Amino acid sequence: MNSPQSSTAITSPIPARLLQLRQAMQKHGIHAYIIPSADPHLSEYLPERWEGRSYFSGFTGSAGTLVVTANFAGLWVDSRYWSQAEKELAPTGIQMMKIASAAATAHIDWLAQHVEQGQTVGVDGMVLGLATARLLATALHAKKIQLDTGNDLLQNIWPNRPDLPEAPIVEHLPPFAVISRQDKLSLIREAMRSKGADWHFVSTVDDIAWIFNLRGSDVSYNPVFISHALIGLNKATLFVSPAKINANLQAVLASDGINIVRYQDAQTALRNLPAEARLLIDPRRITHGFSQAVPASVQVIEAINPSVFAKSRKHPQEIQFVREAMEQDGAALCEFFSWLESVSGKETITEITIDEQICAARARQPHYISPSFGTIAGFNGNGAMPHYRATKESHAIIEGNGLLLIDSGGQYLNGTTDITRVVPIGEVSSEQKRDFTLILKGMINLSQMRFPRGTFSPMLDSIARAPIWAEGINYGHGTGHGVGYFLNVHEGPQSISGAMAEPHTAMEVGMITSNEPGIYRPGQWGVRIENLLLNTPSLQTEFGEYLEFETLTLCPIDTRCILTELLRDDEIAWLNHYHATVLKRLSARVSGTAKAWLIERTLPIAR
Amino acid sequence: MNSPQSSTAITSPIPARLLQLRQAMQKHGIHAYIIPSADPHLSEYLPERWEGRSYFSGFTGSAGTLVVTANFAGLWVDSRYWSQAEKELAPTGIQMMKIASAAATAHIDWLAQHVEQGQTVGVDGMVLGLATARLLATALHAKKIQLDTGNDLLQNIWPNRPDLPEAPIVEHLPPFAVISRQDKLSLIREAMRSKGADWHFVSTVDDIAWIFNLRGSDVSYNPVFISHALIGLNKATLFVSPAKINANLQAVLASDGINIVRYQDAQTALRNLPAEARLLIDPRRITHGFSQAVPASVQVIEAINPSVFAKSRKHPQEIQFVREAMEQDGAALCEFFSWLESVSGKETITEITIDEQICAARARQPHYISPSFGTIAGFNGNGAMPHYRATKESHAIIEGNGLLLIDSGGQYLNGTTDITRVVPIGEVSSEQKRDFTLILKGMINLSQMRFPRGTFSPMLDSIARAPIWAEGINYGHGTGHGVGYFLNVHEGPQSISGAMAEPHTAMEVGMITSNEPGIYRPGQWGVRIENLLLNTPSLQTEFGEYLEFETLTLCPIDTRCILTELLRDDEIAWLNHYHATVLKRLSARVSGTAKAWLIERTLPIAR
Repeated sequence: MNSPQSSTAITSPIPARLLQLRQAMQKHGIHAYIIPSADPHLSEYLPERWEGRSYFSGFTGSAGTLVVTANFAGLWVDSRYWSQAEKELAPTGIQMMKIASAAATAHIDWLAQHVEQGQTVGVDGMVLGLATARLLATALHAKKIQLDTGNDLLQNIWPNRPDLPEAPIVEHLPPFAVISRQDKLSLIREAMRSKGADWHFVSTVDDIAWIFNLRGSDVSYNPVFISHALIGLNKATLFVSPAKINANLQAVLASDGINIVRYQDAQTALRNLPAEARLLIDPRRITHGFSQAVPASVQVIEAINPSVFAKSRKHPQEIQFVREAMEQDGAALCEFFSWLESVSGKETITEITIDEQICAARARQPHYISPSFGTIAGFNGNGAMPHYRATKESHAIIEGNGLLLIDSGGQYLNGTTDITRVVPIGEVSSEQKRDFTLILKGMINLSQMRFPRGTFSPMLDSIARAPIWAEGINYGHGTGHGVGYFLNVHEGPQSISGAMAEPHTAMEVGMITSNEPGIYRPGQWGVRIENLLLNTPSLQTEFGEYLEFETLTLCPIDTRCILTELLRDDEIAWLNHYHATVLKRLSARVSGTAKAWLIERTLPIAR
Repeated sequence: MNSPQSSTAITSPIPARLLQLRQAMQKHGIHAYIIPSADPHLSEYLPERWEGRSYFSGFTGSAGTLVVTANFAGLWVDSRYWSQAEKELAPTGIQMMKIASAAATAHIDWLAQHVEQGQTVGVDGMVLGLATARLLATALHAKKIQLDTGNDLLQNIWPNRPDLPEAPIVEHLPPFAVISRQDKLSLIREAMRSKGADWHFVSTVDDIAWIFNLRGSDVSYNPVFISHALIGLNKATLFVSPAKINANLQAVLASDGINIVRYQDAQTALRNLPAEARLLIDPRRITHGFSQAVPASVQVIEAINPSVFAKSRKHPQEIQFVREAMEQDGAALCEFFSWLESVSGKETITEITIDEQICAARARQPHYISPSFGTIAGFNGNGAMPHYRATKESHAIIEGNGLLLIDSGGQYLNGTTDITRVVPIGEVSSEQKRDFTLILKGMINLSQMRFPRGTFSPMLDSIARAPIWAEGINYGHGTGHGVGYFLNVHEGPQSISGAMAEPHTAMEVGMITSNEPGIYRPGQWGVRIENLLLNTPSLQTEFGEYLEFETLTLCPIDTRCILTELLRDDEIAWLNHYHATVLKRLSARVSGTAKAWLIERTLPIAR
């Protein structure tokens, strides 16, 4: 059950902070100020230094946009966060503005409607994506509203604003690093040539980590480090604090034609590009601020970062390592779930304990580095918040009856995992079983799909949703996101989702994508079942090349929550075959109670 | 069976025409010239004057792009036309370049790769869409290739190039014209204001016909007339040959604040816009040439033409008229199909006879105006060409065994129809029945979908394809296109298709969309089943507003081609319910052999 009040409710410094922001706005002649959830690298997980949206709104979710005017403050947030935002914003007076998806630009429309002609909208161009900046400029321009991207108002009104993180950078080494740094650079340069570019600027930190086979720990969960990169046809510069890279590694990089320059010199390097340069940038992966630094004489070629495609198609050896990581992860989950069943009803378990125990189980596995994101352990009503995070101040005790939703994952040197399971606590109602079974049907339908190579990933979204759409049910998040290889748990370009933010989403062999439909009943319960899927070659016919999915995730799906009569024969067959595979692949890696649990939870079902 | 050779094979003037084009290119310093299938209105059906692509290539399909260099000539064409293009290009030496969809820009990539740095690509900007022009410019610019949009090379080397059509313009009158001209103009102006525009320029002829409740016959099948429109906040100008509009109609239009100006003065009107004007244009629906005429001082606001949205959502009274048109159309088809069955095997019937008979049957119905597109009657191998058109010189006799595919439609004052059926001739093989049944499954799956209001129409595409994808089969055209109300049989913005050319594709109540999956086995047979679907309100739940489809088309689906064992129970139930509806709605409108046929062909099926 939730504790009566959340921490922010006790004393909220937010109104005072907004007052300072409004004073700064007035000083700079800005009538509306936007604080996006973004940094100069357009990352999902931000270093504290760029968590201004959270500092000024009190909303701690990973996505949301704050807009402040003289007499209004609103936070635009998608349905994953509605419940959480409602709680966290309550004491602040900030209005929650509901949007359909994180990709939506509703706040831009709001600004165009509410800011008066001749007034000025401000935003720090250094943390504003170029593509977004263009949408904003067009919308405001049409209403004769000014756009000021030159001011970081937070700088002077945010006391002891955190500095940049200084965590050391390490190499991702063989055997787990399958493709060499040189090979990756040649591949990028080949793509640059094919587009007529001789320079390529990269700001996205997962692209940089992948290209250079380097990893860091500057932010939570994603093994990346804050940096930019400028890649020429025969040399490359990494803009990163030199203190993060020891002498040996600096030498290794130098021998690969990579020199290290201070992080803050990246803009200058762009300003100093040769007048004749032809620069490849990705308007979705570079900020407006950095694009402004490019000299007018430079010919800018806009295209998706070549590394985004390259890293999405895992190498066959990487895939072999991932299959092993999935067995390790599955074994850890057997230990965790068997422990959970053994103690539930006997000991007091909270959502916090769940997090500790699941991380501990993974930590006992080889090559484990960290969680791949903050564990989501939500009991009943908390499970209805897709991105719920239990805190010391606000969390539920696992007792009584209902559904426990657990979404968690691990970073291993040999892969990144992300899995969601829902388990019964005490009695489970038939409504809860019905939701569970409908979601299972959608998850199975997508797992069973065969489709032409190159199919736009968004086209597959409706396959997972059809069974719940038929009942007038839907969920506000995508069905699937790409997953990195010991890298970000959310990576592009493919996305099984209606948002279609990224136009480059063709399904190709080697891509790893999540399959996670869900049903969320605010205040009651949430159901989500998530496996990771690998795109593998299937039929080759007169009509072309076809792909199918290999389910990578190995963990039982709790059959005690299923209403068998809602499943088709082929769906039951899929589930039994999946459980047989899980049993076969995991048996050798577990023992004792964990093994007994694995055997029991993978028993076939029938009508 | 096809006659041994097609007309173009006898004597092809194409090489001589290409020679003249190449001489003109040399004279203007153009190294590669593009001839798109387009006119200044970006229409699908072109007045002869703008059928340059067909004149210089010999390819008569409705979509294709010709690119000519000194030593190469290629026609980029999507899979609907591969068989047809192969035939028609054979004698010309022009290479067929296969592309996935009509929306593809493969020819642009080809130009970027094959034209040398410093050379010039030419195209007539007056028939090049602004959005396409931008893609082209970006791609060529990146390779330092020049783009020349100022030359219509065809003008001087096309002897007796046809003039503009001069067909008279008539009013679309009540009761069938449900929304008045004034109301439509206010609606457009409201949309203009909401976008901050005080002027709106329209080039797309179906938008113009809809806004002004006018119809014409300048092109085949689409009841439109060649014109542009410039809409201000309290007056509007129609750029059209005054000779087309009689005095009475001119007076009616004048009383609605619409003045008529010569067609060729449209560009001048743009040039003379007030310096302070804020002009709304749709980059997908205006040509580069016209956009160039806009003075630099004018503030251009880019958005989809408001009329595209407005006309896609049919008014309840329009829908009632369409339901009646569907009954008329269904009755005509009963007469046609019963005739076909009565004579087949007895008289000699060709694909041409089919066209004549089906048009004659429709012509006997009230409010009939014309076919809504050229009848596609394809027997066996010809049915494998999705846009096949039988000609005097090349057509098949309906004899022996196989499948006859008939795709046809009518323009009525009370609606536009478009239907495809496949009927058995003699013996039908089990492979043919299998294809027929798989397509039927996809068609039924989509017909049965329920989905949230606002779902992107492309997301529904995979629902119709899943049953054939599972078998490694696919089709190269979209699953569904929007359909007009006594207007174009292909109208936007929605499109159930993987191409996703148009970003504005949210499904809304009142939209009419085709549902037409197909299987094409070159040289063997083709199967396509097409109904028109209406978006209607469905459930309203805590998760939002849901839509479902009402099948508008009323005509039996030939159950003699079905392998019942491939159908699920719900699919059989859908088909039997559909046939019961068809029988109920059409009985009163047919008699004699037609009625007997209707009764027999709507009998329920069972395992």
